[in-house]
Amino acid sequence: MFSLDELRAGLAEHRPQILALVHAETSTGACQPLEGVGELCREFNCLLLADTVTSLGGLPLFLDDWGIDMAYSGSQKCLSCPPGISPLTLGPRAIAKLNQRQTKVPNWYLDLSMVGKYWGQERTYHHTAPISMIYALREALRLIAEEGLAERWSRHQANAERLWEGLASLGLKCHVEEPYRLPSLITVCIPEGVDGKAVTQKLLTDYNIEVGNGLGELAGQVWRIGLMGFNSRPENVLMVLDAFKETIG
Amino acid sequence: MFSLDELRAGLAEHRPQILALVHAETSTGACQPLEGVGELCREFNCLLLADTVTSLGGLPLFLDDWGIDMAYSGSQKCLSCPPGISPLTLGPRAIAKLNQRQTKVPNWYLDLSMVGKYWGQERTYHHTAPISMIYALREALRLIAEEGLAERWSRHQANAERLWEGLASLGLKCHVEEPYRLPSLITVCIPEGVDGKAVTQKLLTDYNIEVGNGLGELAGQVWRIGLMGFNSRPENVLMVLDAFKETIG
Repeated sequence: MFSLDELRAGLAEHRPQILALVHAETSTGACQPLEGVGELCREFNCLLLADTVTSLGGLPLFLDDWGIDMAYSGSQKCLSCPPGISPLTLGPRAIAKLNQRQTKVPNWYLDLSMVGKYWGQERTYHHTAPISMIYALREALRLIAEEGLAERWSRHQANAERLWEGLASLGLKCHVEEPYRLPSLITVCIPEGVDGKAVTQKLLTDYNIEVGNGLGELAGQVWRIGLMGFNSRPENVLMVLDAFKETIG
Repeated sequence: MFSLDELRAGLAEHRPQILALVHAETSTGACQPLEGVGELCREFNCLLLADTVTSLGGLPLFLDDWGIDMAYSGSQKCLSCPPGISPLTLGPRAIAKLNQRQTKVPNWYLDLSMVGKYWGQERTYHHTAPISMIYALREALRLIAEEGLAERWSRHQANAERLWEGLASLGLKCHVEEPYRLPSLITVCIPEGVDGKAVTQKLLTDYNIEVGNGLGELAGQVWRIGLMGFNSRPENVLMVLDAFKETIG
């Protein structure tokens, strides 16, 4: 995680055109605070791009208030929609930058200037819309509206806290300190002497629970437990805690 | 459409690394014969890439026999699967070329070397698979296997011939001569004095039939009628002919 001071120093030194930050990082389980970063980026004439894949629908996210110029997300995390479609948003500063390009985007598929014309008034053909996925996303959003966004955020937080407490009572430590700990993806330190992969394998085969192994530098160091969208439920918390207890107890 | 002689002359002059051909062209309704093109490309040390979006599952296509090194298609045309997933294949010559790259592919999303590792034995993470679309495609392919590929091709051809005859009896001409005329997408010349767009609008609002308008150079010149996959049925041919008869008759 970066503090505002660290970000300011980095922007001053590197003067980037875009600052890209991952809001909810699924390898580490850490939340990058984004409040105030947009103002900082404006000071340095820089766009703010946020990866909100594991935060959208699961924890507070305020694109406009935080001055986020571009954000993308995934459908299959806290939105609980099948994978295969990605929410994407561009604010006026990002669109202005796109429109100022002097050269063509070098590929068709990811050319947002064409996508913009397709989505816009002109309806210029760019791609065939993935109709079934759009219906699926709409239904996922409808369920979120039904629950209420604030209620959904609280639910994610409450179930994460249940899990954190339960893990502590099993003598397991979370990898991330609490102010930066994600409610949607919890990284748990593998205790010394425990074969982490053997545990996740047993959880999968004996309990039908998929817990992720560590990635990159954290390979062999942590387990990764997701509590996202529909899956963020008290009974799931109890189930995963029971399974851990029986497996490593 | 290009003849083998024209393609040979083009390859000799331009010496491209890749020859890209559209097998079934949906703007014109023309079929580009691909037999023999693969051998020609091998002669000129060139890869053959085929766009089979509107041919796969609707008309004869023999990737190996025709020496096609790379092909992509769409799910939503003759396969009659929802849109949102694209069949893609690379043969050994294309993979060898990919593996010989000296520079990294400049974007993650379309990096086939990463996709290859994800699909291959290594299972290196590249993307979250669009599970629902894969089930949908599997079901579409199961229905094709149930019907039989040869039977499916014959059905497309037979229904197209029904449409061609019916159009002729209404005094309407097809834009493409028969040996190159696609069975999956039929372009019909708009008779002089007829407002093409008014007709497609009426077909849509009064008959719930969507007929495409001409694109590019053919804008205002042709209508485009699709007879693809599940939609290639005698009753649909009769329905569209009746609707045309009442609308322009």
